[in-house]
Amino acid sequence: MIILGIDPGLRTTGFGVIEKHGAKLRYIASGTIKTGLEGALPPRLKVILHGVSEIIATYQPACSAIEKVFVNVNPQSTLLLGQARGAAITALVSADLDVAEYTAVQVKQAVVGTGKAAKPQVQDMVARLLKLPGLPGTDAADALGVAICHAHSIDTLLLLNGLSPAGQVLRMKNSRLVS
Amino acid sequence: MIILGIDPGLRTTGFGVIEKHGAKLRYIASGTIKTGLEGALPPRLKVILHGVSEIIATYQPACSAIEKVFVNVNPQSTLLLGQARGAAITALVSADLDVAEYTAVQVKQAVVGTGKAAKPQVQDMVARLLKLPGLPGTDAADALGVAICHAHSIDTLLLLNGLSPAGQVLRMKNSRLVS
Repeated sequence: MIILGIDPGLRTTGFGVIEKHGAKLRYIASGTIKTGLEGALPPRLKVILHGVSEIIATYQPACSAIEKVFVNVNPQSTLLLGQARGAAITALVSADLDVAEYTAVQVKQAVVGTGKAAKPQVQDMVARLLKLPGLPGTDAADALGVAICHAHSIDTLLLLNGLSPAGQVLRMKNSRLVS
Repeated sequence: MIILGIDPGLRTTGFGVIEKHGAKLRYIASGTIKTGLEGALPPRLKVILHGVSEIIATYQPACSAIEKVFVNVNPQSTLLLGQARGAAITALVSADLDVAEYTAVQVKQAVVGTGKAAKPQVQDMVARLLKLPGLPGTDAADALGVAICHAHSIDTLLLLNGLSPAGQVLRMKNSRLVS
């Protein structure tokens, strides 16, 4: 199962694509969609739409997940970020993908084992879990983290429905916490 | 030239379609896209995407305009409204439509003649300008108002480029102010 994770932003939207085989995760691709710093909002949202659509066409994910964003101290920034996230979600649903949502705390909990992890810890753990040769950029790492979080969430849902071996999933979680 | 106006919202997105023949405006259609009050955000944004896409497929507008939204006192509401607006804009650009943006003040100025007009005045003037048999709902009226505002803006742009008779446009604006 191929999972697409998105870390939304107006200037930079991170994406991460991973493959889940049972409890194993494999890195496929990651990067960023950049809209530039200037210009009217609609063309910038179009860049996000086309970027996300191209990633979906290329990697054919079965499902997707996107990070929940927080309100900024600057209300205008909140509005801009909201619109960028709306564009990314719309691109995902326009391809008929289900879209799961996770907070940054949930992502950090899933990847690092604590919701209070710093960004470098997320980058480091994402690189370890996916056996990357180097550290991914912060936006790509966050997007890969969202995809990893969703992969675990699928395991938990399967577990709750009695469809997956519990031990396997739990061992995986333990090894992550102590690694 | 057929113009699509959008008044974005998460619960209710208003739309208005008008036709512009020179300085004359003709009503074509208006209404609302409702996402319901509950449920996860992605399926609600999908309703907005599909609603706007269906309107574009039905009325084949040549261009579009959307109301700029303001930050709410509640930051969470600002974030939700931003995402809904992002979905509507994404639906418009995904159909390769240009999207113009106008503030509520600009729309009121164009429709009523004063940026401080109340909602019922907008409804009343939209009904008069488009010769409607009754008052449109507030969301549809706002969307029609955005479309009217864009029609005037096109006239002004043509005027600035020396492509339209100035007197005709100016008379139209004056008659609106005193009507």
